[in-house]
Amino acid sequence: MNPQALLPRLALALAFLAALAGAAAADALRSTADLGVVIERASGSVLIVDRTDHAVLQRVEGFGDLSHASVVFSGDGRFAFVFGRDGALTKLDLLTGRIAGRISQAGNSIGGAISDDGRLVAVANYEPGGVRVFSADTLAPVASFDTGAKTIGLVDVPGRRFVFTTWDTGETWIADLSGATPRTEVIGGIGRNPYDALVTGDGRYYIAGLFGEDGLTLLDLWDDHPRPRRILEGYGRGEAALPVYKMPHLEGWALAGDRFVLPAVGHHEVLWLDARSFEELGRTPTHGQPVFAVARPGGRQVWVNFAHPLNDTVQVIDTRSGEIVKTLKPGPAVLHMEFAPRGNEVWISVRDDDRIRIYDTETFEEIAELPARSPSGIFFTSRAHRIGL
Amino acid sequence: MNPQALLPRLALALAFLAALAGAAAADALRSTADLGVVIERASGSVLIVDRTDHAVLQRVEGFGDLSHASVVFSGDGRFAFVFGRDGALTKLDLLTGRIAGRISQAGNSIGGAISDDGRLVAVANYEPGGVRVFSADTLAPVASFDTGAKTIGLVDVPGRRFVFTTWDTGETWIADLSGATPRTEVIGGIGRNPYDALVTGDGRYYIAGLFGEDGLTLLDLWDDHPRPRRILEGYGRGEAALPVYKMPHLEGWALAGDRFVLPAVGHHEVLWLDARSFEELGRTPTHGQPVFAVARPGGRQVWVNFAHPLNDTVQVIDTRSGEIVKTLKPGPAVLHMEFAPRGNEVWISVRDDDRIRIYDTETFEEIAELPARSPSGIFFTSRAHRIGL
Repeated sequence: MNPQALLPRLALALAFLAALAGAAAADALRSTADLGVVIERASGSVLIVDRTDHAVLQRVEGFGDLSHASVVFSGDGRFAFVFGRDGALTKLDLLTGRIAGRISQAGNSIGGAISDDGRLVAVANYEPGGVRVFSADTLAPVASFDTGAKTIGLVDVPGRRFVFTTWDTGETWIADLSGATPRTEVIGGIGRNPYDALVTGDGRYYIAGLFGEDGLTLLDLWDDHPRPRRILEGYGRGEAALPVYKMPHLEGWALAGDRFVLPAVGHHEVLWLDARSFEELGRTPTHGQPVFAVARPGGRQVWVNFAHPLNDTVQVIDTRSGEIVKTLKPGPAVLHMEFAPRGNEVWISVRDDDRIRIYDTETFEEIAELPARSPSGIFFTSRAHRIGL
Repeated sequence: MNPQALLPRLALALAFLAALAGAAAADALRSTADLGVVIERASGSVLIVDRTDHAVLQRVEGFGDLSHASVVFSGDGRFAFVFGRDGALTKLDLLTGRIAGRISQAGNSIGGAISDDGRLVAVANYEPGGVRVFSADTLAPVASFDTGAKTIGLVDVPGRRFVFTTWDTGETWIADLSGATPRTEVIGGIGRNPYDALVTGDGRYYIAGLFGEDGLTLLDLWDDHPRPRRILEGYGRGEAALPVYKMPHLEGWALAGDRFVLPAVGHHEVLWLDARSFEELGRTPTHGQPVFAVARPGGRQVWVNFAHPLNDTVQVIDTRSGEIVKTLKPGPAVLHMEFAPRGNEVWISVRDDDRIRIYDTETFEEIAELPARSPSGIFFTSRAHRIGL
């Protein structure tokens, strides 16, 4: 053996292995179950964060228009699927910090969902409308539902199904992708201009908010053929003469004990609803027009943020008394709140202060803060294990 | 530079890096959010499994007596804390497959819990009784609660608290570890010989089963000072003259829609309870004496397994009709069922057939099976994100 001939080959092997070991060793330190992402809306970038360590691990650029972004996760917590306003769907690998795939699937989209088995990612589109479904693995197209209308309120429900609603035509579609050929059931008469919808945490009740009418429309997805039922007839009625700065999100009603709590439209109030009858039980006056009312996991408290110009504030409501027990001032433009999955802390994005503030939910003390550029949505990988998110 | 002198050093570096890259690359392929463990009770070993791939990744030996084992997970899904019957607490690293720590903390233990912030692991002991609390990071002792009695029904609840109950003295203890010094509240009069307890998924209602009396005891943990309330007075009454082969587990009542379902004691039935009033609503006759009645996530179905000698069978009950819609025969000695977190599939351990069977919950078809030695409990890391497990 001639050592001089061997040397270059050894050196090459060494360099390769060093690179491999370095990359892999860095990855091996990341567990996926407590990761998360923060949307930086102005710069089209995403932060990968570690929930346990209260740390930013990495900034990843190149997501396009994130002015109205949402995120779902693969079942193993490794991949974030980021839905941009511009119709782009980007698959981010949280272990390597690299973009693992990116497609431009429509002109203007409004959110997405992932099937209960984690195999299918669906996107609802304004332009050209409808819902498109892709392989979570490859982002290859799998199915397309042409609703002939702007489509909103897309959620996953058990049984490899997606549910979504049309703005223009007031239809709710249930798309079942469990078989070889997709099956759809179309339910008309949802109402005039549904603007958003949600499904309850058990995947049973689908509720659409209506822009053009009072009330909300409820479907019981456990029925073989769900029929629309109007609830909360007074909801949305404009008797208060307050301008509606922002329609409240229906992303997830807060189920707190045996009641739902939801933002009133155009009022400085949240509403309490009986979780069985969907009848209103009462209201709690709040600091401003609520945008999100989110239950701390377990339901003991509800945290509320507010529309401009009162959006520097967060209020905490005790579920049982319905009383406000704490008012916090995280700073200018509080956009989103995300709880640790067992609710011991909450992460709050403060857009115009360029930071995330983290509070202990028992003491209300700030326990950490993280720098972020104009942060909006915060999403933890534990969402991968919940229905309808 | 003399290549002949350099060569041995290069070769050494190469060997080191190759080992490092190999180990690290293997780790890097594991995301923690869809891992799980299977207890192999006869051999004191644990399988690390991948839920998405339906694969056994590794067998790890050396856990001692696992004849009545339970498991909780760190918040990042990386570490499993395995509680053995012999009082051992073993910390298993699911990324490396190595035992990261092991202590013998008592003579005979009956289960454990992890605090909502993931920092504290607690173990309930038969012998010498009481509860001991350890750092999840180092397994160093942090606190000890000497109840003076055999202790059962240990659960975590929000606010860095643990709740547990004494067999001999009928007390429930609420231990609050959120401050510098632990605080305890002791509630007497729970009943004669509580043998197990559970907390509802929202961390609110704590319910103890009584060996020596009919009925169950309910505490509302949202109260400032919870008082015992007796519910289901007839529960446990022996009018059926059937021998009780096994007291049913109260590990988690199935919340299905707005009802709880639970195994009847000594009867071939499950009971349906109103989830608000805790009044009995009815019963469904079953194949045998139920051991576990577990709701598919979302609550649309309840899956039930049975005591010896009818323990080769699993039945599926439709929640709304209360009727059995499927009877499966997975094989001899079905010991445990664990659902994927969004409920699309269920893993069933069949002890005397040395295998895990995995079923699609929509079609009831078997989709995979895995070899395992006398498997009992199956635990997925998604439990890390749920209250009271």
